Amino acid sequence: MEQPAIQLAYALDTFYSLVSGALVMWMAAGFAMLEAGLVRAKNTTEILAKNVGLFAIACVMYMLVGYNIMYGDGTGVFPSISFLLGGDNAVADVLKGDDDAPYYSNMADFFFQVVFVATAMSVVSGAMAERMKLMAFFIFATVFTGFIYPVEGYWKWGGGFLDQMGFQDFAGSGIVHMAGASAALAGVLLLGARKGKYGPNGEIKPIPGANLPLATLGTFILWLGWFGFNGGSELKISSIDEANAVSMVFVNTNMAAAGGVIGALLSSRLVFGKVDLTMMLNGALAGLVAITAEPLNPSALEATLFGLIAGVIVFFSIIALDKLKIDDPVGAISVHGVVGFFGLMIVPLTNGDATFGTQLIGALTIFAWVFFTSLIVWTILKAVMGIRVDEEHEYEGLDLVECGQEAYPEFTKS
Amino acid sequence: MEQPAIQLAYALDTFYSLVSGALVMWMAAGFAMLEAGLVRAKNTTEILAKNVGLFAIACVMYMLVGYNIMYGDGTGVFPSISFLLGGDNAVADVLKGDDDAPYYSNMADFFFQVVFVATAMSVVSGAMAERMKLMAFFIFATVFTGFIYPVEGYWKWGGGFLDQMGFQDFAGSGIVHMAGASAALAGVLLLGARKGKYGPNGEIKPIPGANLPLATLGTFILWLGWFGFNGGSELKISSIDEANAVSMVFVNTNMAAAGGVIGALLSSRLVFGKVDLTMMLNGALAGLVAITAEPLNPSALEATLFGLIAGVIVFFSIIALDKLKIDDPVGAISVHGVVGFFGLMIVPLTNGDATFGTQLIGALTIFAWVFFTSLIVWTILKAVMGIRVDEEHEYEGLDLVECGQEAYPEFTKS
Amino acid sequence: MEQPAIQLAYALDTFYSLVSGALVMWMAAGFAMLEAGLVRAKNTTEILAKNVGLFAIACVMYMLVGYNIMYGDGTGVFPSISFLLGGDNAVADVLKGDDDAPYYSNMADFFFQVVFVATAMSVVSGAMAERMKLMAFFIFATVFTGFIYPVEGYWKWGGGFLDQMGFQDFAGSGIVHMAGASAALAGVLLLGARKGKYGPNGEIKPIPGANLPLATLGTFILWLGWFGFNGGSELKISSIDEANAVSMVFVNTNMAAAGGVIGALLSSRLVFGKVDLTMMLNGALAGLVAITAEPLNPSALEATLFGLIAGVIVFFSIIALDKLKIDDPVGAISVHGVVGFFGLMIVPLTNGDATFGTQLIGALTIFAWVFFTSLIVWTILKAVMGIRVDEEHEYEGLDLVECGQEAYPEFTKS
Repeated sequence: MEQPAIQLAYALDTFYSLVSGALVMWMAAGFAMLEAGLVRAKNTTEILAKNVGLFAIACVMYMLVGYNIMYGDGTGVFPSISFLLGGDNAVADVLKGDDDAPYYSNMADFFFQVVFVATAMSVVSGAMAERMKLMAFFIFATVFTGFIYPVEGYWKWGGGFLDQMGFQDFAGSGIVHMAGASAALAGVLLLGARKGKYGPNGEIKPIPGANLPLATLGTFILWLGWFGFNGGSELKISSIDEANAVSMVFVNTNMAAAGGVIGALLSSRLVFGKVDLTMMLNGALAGLVAITAEPLNPSALEATLFGLIAGVIVFFSIIALDKLKIDDPVGAISVHGVVGFFGLMIVPLTNGDATFGTQLIGALTIFAWVFFTSLIVWTILKAVMGIRVDEEHEYEGLDLVECGQEAYPEFTKS
Repeated sequence: MEQPAIQLAYALDTFYSLVSGALVMWMAAGFAMLEAGLVRAKNTTEILAKNVGLFAIACVMYMLVGYNIMYGDGTGVFPSISFLLGGDNAVADVLKGDDDAPYYSNMADFFFQVVFVATAMSVVSGAMAERMKLMAFFIFATVFTGFIYPVEGYWKWGGGFLDQMGFQDFAGSGIVHMAGASAALAGVLLLGARKGKYGPNGEIKPIPGANLPLATLGTFILWLGWFGFNGGSELKISSIDEANAVSMVFVNTNMAAAGGVIGALLSSRLVFGKVDLTMMLNGALAGLVAITAEPLNPSALEATLFGLIAGVIVFFSIIALDKLKIDDPVGAISVHGVVGFFGLMIVPLTNGDATFGTQLIGALTIFAWVFFTSLIVWTILKAVMGIRVDEEHEYEGLDLVECGQEAYPEFTKS
Repeated sequence: MEQPAIQLAYALDTFYSLVSGALVMWMAAGFAMLEAGLVRAKNTTEILAKNVGLFAIACVMYMLVGYNIMYGDGTGVFPSISFLLGGDNAVADVLKGDDDAPYYSNMADFFFQVVFVATAMSVVSGAMAERMKLMAFFIFATVFTGFIYPVEGYWKWGGGFLDQMGFQDFAGSGIVHMAGASAALAGVLLLGARKGKYGPNGEIKPIPGANLPLATLGTFILWLGWFGFNGGSELKISSIDEANAVSMVFVNTNMAAAGGVIGALLSSRLVFGKVDLTMMLNGALAGLVAITAEPLNPSALEATLFGLIAGVIVFFSIIALDKLKIDDPVGAISVHGVVGFFGLMIVPLTNGDATFGTQLIGALTIFAWVFFTSLIVWTILKAVMGIRVDEEHEYEGLDLVECGQEAYPEFTKS
């Protein structure tokens, strides 16, 4: 390519990364609204603080150490001085235009990657809602975003052993979503269920969320943000082939979400006799998580079907986890964990480079790594400072004890 | 053009379509929030489920049949195999670079078009809120998005007879907005008013919406999404002329919305002595609907004036429909129908290719087709399964009977 | 450059401006949600109407006179006929491709600039919430957006004396944010505190906001929109150097916000023993305001530190203003004013073209101009129509008296 064309392609690919990253950053708002809508009013301020705080922590930790672990040159986990001081690609290097030449901004790449870390961490906050100590959560977030996530991210996207053995995970059904759910599962097992959720004779008591419009808004935000999440993971758009690929990813992402809604809608209508809104929202998210491992190769019809199945899976998974007394107030373990695993395992159906065996090894590796490191961190936190609030405070609500602010001081009955 | 420039132009036009499509998809959230804010608390979960469900149904039906009816090669209404299996433009065809060569991704085009269908369908849900059966609505949505909309869409944007006779509708004041309102009007006439809305002696009782911040948020979302709706409808941005055109469309879209706010603000202040927020929101939407038929040719000043007039029209139209006992809880028929018609009729003022006669024929054709086909579908649904919930359930609220979930279980006064 | 490359660069730079402008427009929703969440339920409709109305007024006034004052050719304050009639760059002028040739659409530039005006004005509405007359506010908005803001904007961005003396303000810590806060301060001093805010013996009574999820959503919207605000202010992206610059701006904007959250989080935890959500939100905004004057030169690490300090500053500033009995319900004067000043003063730390002296002169000039002109306008408004509602109406809430609509008619405890 000639020089003006190289410059323009670099600019377009950079702009596409930045727009994609901004959309993924927006998912932070989606998780915050989704979770705030699905908890009770008395725990709403706390979960908002959790979501705002974890995003900030994720950005700082990933800048300081995580990015270097995941994409560094292997010289160590300490901050890459050149990165922290702000270096970017030299114009001369780009203009070489050969296969090794950088084709978009390093800083745009960092921006896109950093918002992924926050997404993984956001999965954790919902599952542990309504009974966890806020400062313990922030400390866990520091370790997860600075160390646990970057290590498994390196194994695939940094060129580590999972990548070398042929494990496929386009935008992170496993590396991002199942990883978040694995950390959450470890925490939930240690933390136990919310008081009153399960009765003495095995009854499961529904604890409805306080604000369903907020949960719906959160889902739409996530749906929108996912176009950046999957669409941006093609990493290049500046040629006909790449532009076609990104377009296919957008279409499949959208169709899988639509399929997920319909799968959950029909399931809830057939099983409950009602159109269950929160199941539909989780169905949409399940469709999105399922397609994330391979949004490029399926046809639009296949993507819709994958999403539909994911919507059915998430419906029954949420019910099953409740029967197992694994108390996940927002369904995050089902949406991101169970369906994340499903997403990884269907990749071979449309991608000839993947095999079921390799996908299974990859999934188990990610789960084992994240689950056990998280379990260790949660256990230490439990021993040192405690991870669960007092029973009295749980009854009263976390907002007053942790944040000193009610979310809706003028609204709640009582 | 040389090959690198063709590749880059294709990539840029594709990216622009995808970004525009994502913005239009976001309008689904806007309609959901707007409508959820303007109904009563007891009917909020249901309208959220309606909006999430209709978006999913629209995507699936348009993929299966609608897109092929609207833009197919005329070989039939059944799925285009090549489309469903995921074909896109061959590189060699694009690189020919002549006038017939495709200049952006087919998949990006589908993505942009599919979110338009959902917009048209979203118009319907608001007008029929608070008394309609949810499953009947979903069945209607299936027919509307798979068949009714694509047929009239084909008449103009697919190159059908309205296009050939010179009817002008840039981004769909008629084809999208007035079409949605026509379907809604047919439904509302069959459905009747909400219980308690009109007293025995002709009194009109206001039924205030439960959550005005949500309605305001929805309006801002729609305002933002409209930059994709109108801005993306230029379909190309990769030259100086096209980039200037898209910019003009952005400016005019924004100015018309601003004009609409001011028109409704002044109307409500002069007539009611109050600054009526919901009228301002409907004024913004009216400005947007009005400019949609021709956002390119007006100057910024003209766009502002058109919006201002639309804001005044919608104010009086909402009042007039209420006097006619056409009960539209969110004002959708006025915003999208009355002002959609107004938008079509002012095109000749700034576009020399349009005539009032042709615009009127186009408007009447769209209205007649959508209104009568919808009336038939609604009538069949009414006969087969009923379209209105029981009086007792209407009193109790649709959320419990249809969805089994309250939207705000801790908030509402009892 | 050859002609196809010039055309593509023009198209890309235009598209980048439009996307950036759309993101900044979205900030209007952010301010509306933030402010609606931080006032009491009874004043929510009014503040929503204020935010929707001021955006519309800002767009119209800036089109009619403001844009011409700020960027006109100096021939007068009256509307630029050529602009209002819709002229854009001629293709031939662009294709010259020399240094003076326009490189993106004039209309895209107007779109980007007009949403900035609205941002400045949005700062004002929050500080004066819960006791101000709505129509007086709209009249002030007309003068501020049409005249006060454009004049000081001209001094820097239009090439006026502040620009010529070397004052640096990349995207408007001073010109936009501190200007808005200066107008707000003038108003607040004239208006006085809300009834019941300060007790007879100097007690400060907290008046909690009614809806913290809404305030959190608003903050996330602003965070997202700021990528357009700062990222778009580079004004060009179509080369390697420019693309790298825009990417750096995105990264620094994000890191400063993250730093601000952490600064406020730690401050509130150490001082109050609680994790104060509203302080974290203001911390995020403070980080964003602080980096806005110079988001390009700092490294990611420096940007994080600047944000962190800003988060600490805003925490103590909000407390201090309350002690001074300057009643600012949303903390806008601290976030945009105090931290805006801080942002201007740290520019010389990373930008060799700036000096502390020049930055101080610029800051004082902006403050003096905006504060005193605003004071004059507020004083005239106070004399002519009054700016404060009656005590009885303030007690009852502004929603009923100004708008005739409650924001949450079914929710509030009575």
